[in-house]
Amino acid sequence: MPVAPIGIVRSPWPDRFGIPRQAGLVAVDASIELHPDRCPPEAVRGLEAFSHIWVIAWFHASPPGSPTVRPPRLGGNARVGVLASRSPVRPVPIGLSAVELVAVEPTRLRVRGVDLLDGTPVLDIKPYIPWCDAIPDARAGWAAEAPARKPVRWSAAAERAIAAHPNAASLRPLIEAAIALDPRPAYRGGEHDPRRYAMRLADVDVAFGVAEDETLEVLDVARLPPG
Amino acid sequence: MPVAPIGIVRSPWPDRFGIPRQAGLVAVDASIELHPDRCPPEAVRGLEAFSHIWVIAWFHASPPGSPTVRPPRLGGNARVGVLASRSPVRPVPIGLSAVELVAVEPTRLRVRGVDLLDGTPVLDIKPYIPWCDAIPDARAGWAAEAPARKPVRWSAAAERAIAAHPNAASLRPLIEAAIALDPRPAYRGGEHDPRRYAMRLADVDVAFGVAEDETLEVLDVARLPPG
Repeated sequence: MPVAPIGIVRSPWPDRFGIPRQAGLVAVDASIELHPDRCPPEAVRGLEAFSHIWVIAWFHASPPGSPTVRPPRLGGNARVGVLASRSPVRPVPIGLSAVELVAVEPTRLRVRGVDLLDGTPVLDIKPYIPWCDAIPDARAGWAAEAPARKPVRWSAAAERAIAAHPNAASLRPLIEAAIALDPRPAYRGGEHDPRRYAMRLADVDVAFGVAEDETLEVLDVARLPPG
Repeated sequence: MPVAPIGIVRSPWPDRFGIPRQAGLVAVDASIELHPDRCPPEAVRGLEAFSHIWVIAWFHASPPGSPTVRPPRLGGNARVGVLASRSPVRPVPIGLSAVELVAVEPTRLRVRGVDLLDGTPVLDIKPYIPWCDAIPDARAGWAAEAPARKPVRWSAAAERAIAAHPNAASLRPLIEAAIALDPRPAYRGGEHDPRRYAMRLADVDVAFGVAEDETLEVLDVARLPPG
C-alpha cells in the first residue's frame, strides 16, 4: 500500500528530545500545511464546526524497533508489547494525536497541543466526534493518569536570557510546561542526576538540570541563528 | 511510504451496506488476527491492562473520491470537505475506530463494536488512553449527537426465520441494532419509501423495508450456504 501524505506538521519541536509524550500536554501552537494538489481548499470545508481534530501522522524519524518497548511511565525498566504502548517506534510508525483546532485556512490548519516533530508527514485529518471517540471511563492500567508535572525554577542567567527574547511572553510558559514534564529518559530517575540536558524548542536551545530536591532548573536559554 | 498491514479484521460485516457509521454503535463481536511475522505475541504483551483500543485500519474497499462528501447526517444533500467528515472515501483511506477490547490472545485480539468490513487490513493498534484521547466536551457541529435509533419490528416470516437460526440468541439483537440505525442512504429520507433492502450480516441475508409510520421492518432472514 503506497501512502502519500496530505500535509506536513510545522511545530516548534525540531528534535525528538523534549517533545511531550502525548498530544495536549503542552498547549503549543503549530500548524498543518496541506498539500494543495492532494487536499484542495474544499477538502477542509466545514471543519471549523469542530473544536478538535485527529492528526494521523507518520513517525518519519523513528527507527525500526523491537516487539517490546520500555515505557518511561514504568521507570524505563519494565517491558511491554509495542502495541500496548504509544511509542513512536512501532511496526507501522503511525501516530495518533487529538489536538485543538484553532483556525481553518484554505491550505493550513492552525492547531494547539501537538506532540509531533517539525516536518512530520500527515496522512489524515479527521474531526473529533465525542460520542464515538470520547471514552472517559476507559481503563488504562499503568497509563491511567496523566504524567505528573514537576516543579520548575529558572536560574538568574536563564531569566535574563528569556527576558531578552522577542517572543518571551509566549516562549517562557512553553519552555516551563515542557520542562515540567521532565523530558529526561526515564532510567535517569532515582538517585541525584548531575547532568546538564539540552532541549531545542522553537528558535532556542534550552539547557536544564535537576536540583537535589528534584526541582527541574532551567539553566540557560540560547537563541539559535535564524534559518 | 510503503505500508504493510500488521493484521486483518474478522467481522460479521461482509458488505459495506449496513455497517454502522462509527465504532461502538452496535456491540458486535469481532476479532483482529495479527500476522505473526510482523506482530509476534510479545507485541501485545500488557495490552490486557486496557479496556479499549484504537484500531487504525486501511479502507481497502473504498474507491477514490472527491474532495467533498455528502454526510448521511446532513440528509445526504449538503456537501462538506472530506477532512471534515469520517467518510471511508478520503485522500488516504485510513480508518480510526475506538473499540472495546474483550480478550488478548497471542495472535488475535477479540474486540466489540467494530465498524469495519470483514477482511479490512489493520495498520496499527494502540491502547486507548483517556487523559489524552477522551475529550467529552469537544464541539462537533452537525455531528454532535449520536445517530438516533429508529423503532424496529419483525414480520411473522422474519420471526420464524430467526427463531430457526442456531445463533438466534446473539444474532437477533445484532440485526435489530443494525437495522435501528437505518442503513439506507440518507437521500431516501422524507417521503414514504416502498423499497425492499437487503443487508448481509454474519451468515444471513436480512431483508428490510420501511413502514408508513417510519418504523423499520425486518421482512426476512435467509441463511447463506456455508463457506
